Amino acid sequence: MSDDAARPYALERRQARYAACIDDGRLEDWPGFFTADCRYQIISRESYEKKLPIGVFFANSRGMLGDRVTALREANIYEAQHYRHILSPTFVLARDGTIVTAQTNYQVIRITREGATMLFSTGRYLDRIALEGAKPLFAEKLVVCDSRRIDTLLAIPL
Amino acid sequence: MSDDAARPYALERRQARYAACIDDGRLEDWPGFFTADCRYQIISRESYEKKLPIGVFFANSRGMLGDRVTALREANIYEAQHYRHILSPTFVLARDGTIVTAQTNYQVIRITREGATMLFSTGRYLDRIALEGAKPLFAEKLVVCDSRRIDTLLAIPL
Amino acid sequence: MSDDAARPYALERRQARYAACIDDGRLEDWPGFFTADCRYQIISRESYEKKLPIGVFFANSRGMLGDRVTALREANIYEAQHYRHILSPTFVLARDGTIVTAQTNYQVIRITREGATMLFSTGRYLDRIALEGAKPLFAEKLVVCDSRRIDTLLAIPL
Repeated sequence: MSDDAARPYALERRQARYAACIDDGRLEDWPGFFTADCRYQIISRESYEKKLPIGVFFANSRGMLGDRVTALREANIYEAQHYRHILSPTFVLARDGTIVTAQTNYQVIRITREGATMLFSTGRYLDRIALEGAKPLFAEKLVVCDSRRIDTLLAIPL
Repeated sequence: MSDDAARPYALERRQARYAACIDDGRLEDWPGFFTADCRYQIISRESYEKKLPIGVFFANSRGMLGDRVTALREANIYEAQHYRHILSPTFVLARDGTIVTAQTNYQVIRITREGATMLFSTGRYLDRIALEGAKPLFAEKLVVCDSRRIDTLLAIPL
Repeated sequence: MSDDAARPYALERRQARYAACIDDGRLEDWPGFFTADCRYQIISRESYEKKLPIGVFFANSRGMLGDRVTALREANIYEAQHYRHILSPTFVLARDGTIVTAQTNYQVIRITREGATMLFSTGRYLDRIALEGAKPLFAEKLVVCDSRRIDTLLAIPL
């Protein structure tokens, strides 16, 4: 298998570790999956397709992601529930130098502290991934949610 | 990793692109994932196991798949909803020359235009995949649905 | 791709075959995925995190798994339903000689004989996998379920 063919394979492991970080509640480690000048956005499919600049959450630096984690910790939002990500295989859409654009379908199940389980969000990650360093980092992560009924809780990382 | 070991890996990317084609609503591209003389069938697990020749949908050429797309477009069935496929890892069941038989568990979530999300179908793909050309093509795709409560909407590609 | 990099890839195929064995109802083949002196445990996330030794099911040999299959067959529990596993990508947590520790998020959908479909269990496999033989075998499989509302039916393999 050539280096190029192997790339989505390695990216897929990265996505799985990213999901585990959130599912395990290790929120403080979450910004570390991004580049310093990253873009992270949660947006509905409808807004994305109509090119409406209306996102549920937007950050344009790793520092902003850290601020979000601090806010979530202070509000104890994450403590009342947790997530389980199920990821479909990653595939590459484009490559430009050391930046790879890839798509990964995701499904997030939410489990409340009382044990109730519900399908919380489905959609796709559209990622631009920087390959310069020792580990692939997200230069951009666009979380395109299928439903426009977006819970305010979506402010929690997806 | 040997060429043989890498095969399910490449097949898995192909499945992911197949799913994205449907989820994105690019139905006109869907027949292009099949060989000209393909077989495509949606069948319940019960009918499959009892070897009953009762399928929900059957086509035995790429042209028939194209006809189905035309019918779906005219009926505007696909416009009122979309799908999200979540695929489990692909594994190889058998190989005979340039034909590989492989299995992939699938889950399809349906999202209505109003934003309601529901688990629509689960099951497995039993695929015979032709490896002659530049890209793997489905010589046969058998969609074995777990539930026998099959919605007529299943006429939409799975 | 180096041998080491390829390892989670091969482990992932193994997980997919393990899931297919259960989903197909081939319960008698299930113990064959484990080493003779294996440990298999189903435990809730809450018990796991609090290190409470309370599992829903525990076995410490392949023989005990076989006994469980016999009991399930006699009770006809498995005949009234089946499962569908959807697995997220596997990633490696640690390696010690020929033992690899790996994590795989799972989702199990339950389908009753009447055709009703429900999200049955989500969680993660924490596996210690022995690589000595021709095929990877589970030396330990810890099934950490997200919900503490664990159905007694969970005595069926997950």
